[in-house]
Amino acid sequence: MTHPFDSAIYLDTIDTNTRRGRTHPEWANMVGPFGGITAAVLIRAVETHPDRIGDPLALTVNFAGPIADGDFDIALRAARTNRSNQHWILELSQDGEVKTIATALFGIRRDTWGDTEARPPTVPAPEQIAPSGDQGRVVVWARLYDMRFADGALPGEESQPSPSSTTTLWVRDNAKRTVDYPALAALCDIFYPRVFLRRGAVLPAGTVSLTTYFHADQQQLDSVGDDHVLATAHANRFSNGYFDQSAQVWSRDGVLLATTHQIVYFKG
Amino acid sequence: MTHPFDSAIYLDTIDTNTRRGRTHPEWANMVGPFGGITAAVLIRAVETHPDRIGDPLALTVNFAGPIADGDFDIALRAARTNRSNQHWILELSQDGEVKTIATALFGIRRDTWGDTEARPPTVPAPEQIAPSGDQGRVVVWARLYDMRFADGALPGEESQPSPSSTTTLWVRDNAKRTVDYPALAALCDIFYPRVFLRRGAVLPAGTVSLTTYFHADQQQLDSVGDDHVLATAHANRFSNGYFDQSAQVWSRDGVLLATTHQIVYFKG
Repeated sequence: MTHPFDSAIYLDTIDTNTRRGRTHPEWANMVGPFGGITAAVLIRAVETHPDRIGDPLALTVNFAGPIADGDFDIALRAARTNRSNQHWILELSQDGEVKTIATALFGIRRDTWGDTEARPPTVPAPEQIAPSGDQGRVVVWARLYDMRFADGALPGEESQPSPSSTTTLWVRDNAKRTVDYPALAALCDIFYPRVFLRRGAVLPAGTVSLTTYFHADQQQLDSVGDDHVLATAHANRFSNGYFDQSAQVWSRDGVLLATTHQIVYFKG
Repeated sequence: MTHPFDSAIYLDTIDTNTRRGRTHPEWANMVGPFGGITAAVLIRAVETHPDRIGDPLALTVNFAGPIADGDFDIALRAARTNRSNQHWILELSQDGEVKTIATALFGIRRDTWGDTEARPPTVPAPEQIAPSGDQGRVVVWARLYDMRFADGALPGEESQPSPSSTTTLWVRDNAKRTVDYPALAALCDIFYPRVFLRRGAVLPAGTVSLTTYFHADQQQLDSVGDDHVLATAHANRFSNGYFDQSAQVWSRDGVLLATTHQIVYFKG
């Protein structure tokens, strides 16, 4: 049986620079599909291209308009190929109408000096935190993940505004599909909108632009396997109907797998 | 007399969706022009487009290949226009070869609840710090800015590796041109590469992808005028020839003008 994630990122090749995918009801968000699955599909599209070199280093996805239920086409091309990296432009459309645009940087990783300056938040192990189904009551796709909140769970009906926008959770695919680059791209968008915490309520909100930097190499992804990862996010400023979010995704043994940022539209 | 910044972002209109600019020797970087001036030019290109609505909210620039001295063409189009925001795709090329690709989100700001959760670093006033010309000895364009480092100045010949990648500086255009969105886009790329600090040396390094979220509205930019802004940056992880940087740009009176992130290639 194909895992829901693999079904969702499966693409038909229409021609060298065109892929066709489709939405899946289990990945539904408040409007259209989960942004993370769209990010995953775009990474997958580049991975299927015969000219692709290397692995994902950076991805920016602009959610320009809601993706309707059904088929979508992805037009992609390498705008420039250098010796060790490659710049892609992608456009996802339905019936000729652009829904999502993206740029992706792929590259060949090579051994250099390295260090992780950021530190993961100090939290109990996932086994010591009960899984929460709260987010799954608001959006269908969240039911596909095991989420264990160490900090900043989804506000309930009785919640008050929080002075902090930070959420930290352990998260794992419920069906224990292993983490590869598309899965990591999706995990980077796992957080509900930070404005919910600050306002103590679920409000209309949606990511407009999402940027992810992939730090993990293949070996580090392989080490994660199907284990929980630790995801933490906060906002810097809310103003004029938009806020920004910065987040990190860590492996259990303290490898910074990705850093990721987004700007989110909100009402109220 | 035209200010060097205005000369650098000046664009000829070739047709509705094409602008022509040119490099200027005073904006030269180690290779090609300062990334910040390229970001500024791309914002300016959208601003000159008759279909543009609103002001910059987000910009992602992928520096795909070195821009040679001379003319460049910018092809731009609104991939999608919504009621209150607009998604642009831009490609900068020279002799038909793509050098830079970008996406931009423009939108109309509206009054909502707001709060700044981030806090500016605590530093002495710019008047209490001597301006440093160090960066100007490495790159020509830095001579156009007044830079006063509170933390993490450019390493010198005798420098040791620093355990921290943080740089915090007051910065102002030397000729006191006022801060608008293109100028803010440029200020977001003001930092020399974080790997210099961590390695205690100047090494080959260059930004590959830069994302900026513009938080300031027009009134907040007008309040900055030609004053110093406070810019602070740090890296999260260095590995496999790349590192990421996250940064903030603040006004003197504590308005978070922009948050900005980049992934940077380095050698050694």
